[in-house]
Amino acid sequence: MSTESLKELLIEELKDIYDAEKQLLKALPKMAKAAFDEELKAGFNSHLEETKEHVSRLERVFKLLDEPAKGKVCPAMKGLIEECSEILEERDASSVRDAQIIGSAQRIEHYEIAAYGTVRTLAETLGEDEVAEILQTTLDEEGEQDKKLTAAAATVNEAALTE
Amino acid sequence: MSTESLKELLIEELKDIYDAEKQLLKALPKMAKAAFDEELKAGFNSHLEETKEHVSRLERVFKLLDEPAKGKVCPAMKGLIEECSEILEERDASSVRDAQIIGSAQRIEHYEIAAYGTVRTLAETLGEDEVAEILQTTLDEEGEQDKKLTAAAATVNEAALTE
Repeated sequence: MSTESLKELLIEELKDIYDAEKQLLKALPKMAKAAFDEELKAGFNSHLEETKEHVSRLERVFKLLDEPAKGKVCPAMKGLIEECSEILEERDASSVRDAQIIGSAQRIEHYEIAAYGTVRTLAETLGEDEVAEILQTTLDEEGEQDKKLTAAAATVNEAALTE
Repeated sequence: MSTESLKELLIEELKDIYDAEKQLLKALPKMAKAAFDEELKAGFNSHLEETKEHVSRLERVFKLLDEPAKGKVCPAMKGLIEECSEILEERDASSVRDAQIIGSAQRIEHYEIAAYGTVRTLAETLGEDEVAEILQTTLDEEGEQDKKLTAAAATVNEAALTE
């Protein structure tokens, strides 16, 4: 990557997140299917709908910046999602496995929180206020999803204790 | 991984973080060396000292749980640190590169925030209160480091605009 300006850096980072969101679109249905706890399952399904919206928002952002909506494979996110897939394959559904899935899902959410925080701040610095606002909306939703997963962990961990 | 109980899951997750912290111990001096902004450089150096303490705390936690302090290679963290190393090698020092380093460093911090959040909650559920408290202390410091990096981004991005 030869990033010579903040604008180029913003585009690079957006490509990284665009790819990350598209990877997540494929992973979330598997996570929902694998979840043993019904609320956790519903949570993954509703986050799938949000994630579709996040992808659309990124496409709007690329348009506002006059750039083609294109992803660039993000190896870190690939690793995070692979780790999650391994958990899904390795054991039968149980509360302990749910706890493990939640740990993995929160790492994914935090990757996105960090990534959206970076592009939001870059857009602000560049005076791209509309872009910054769109990215902030998604950032808030990723933060909410992380909180929901923390709440889910409390229930799931208690269930796992008596499994 | 065949995690049959929450206690086993806690140990697995601790091994993952122990490895992640040790990887970070090696990366932070390079990040400090590469930083163009003096405050950012100082920030990485002081976080290196904190990270040494985080490693010691994990060793204390392993002892409290009667487990040997052992890491297990964490591929996601490896990917995150590799991405960061690539940034350091690719361009000469500049404010734009600093902005990119900060983006990478915040992804690393958020990985740790998610990971420490998971083990703290697991320890709480298992009634391992002393362990939970130690992990919470580190979690708070990782959160603070993330906030410092957000503040550093504001300064660095402004400098990058006029570079």
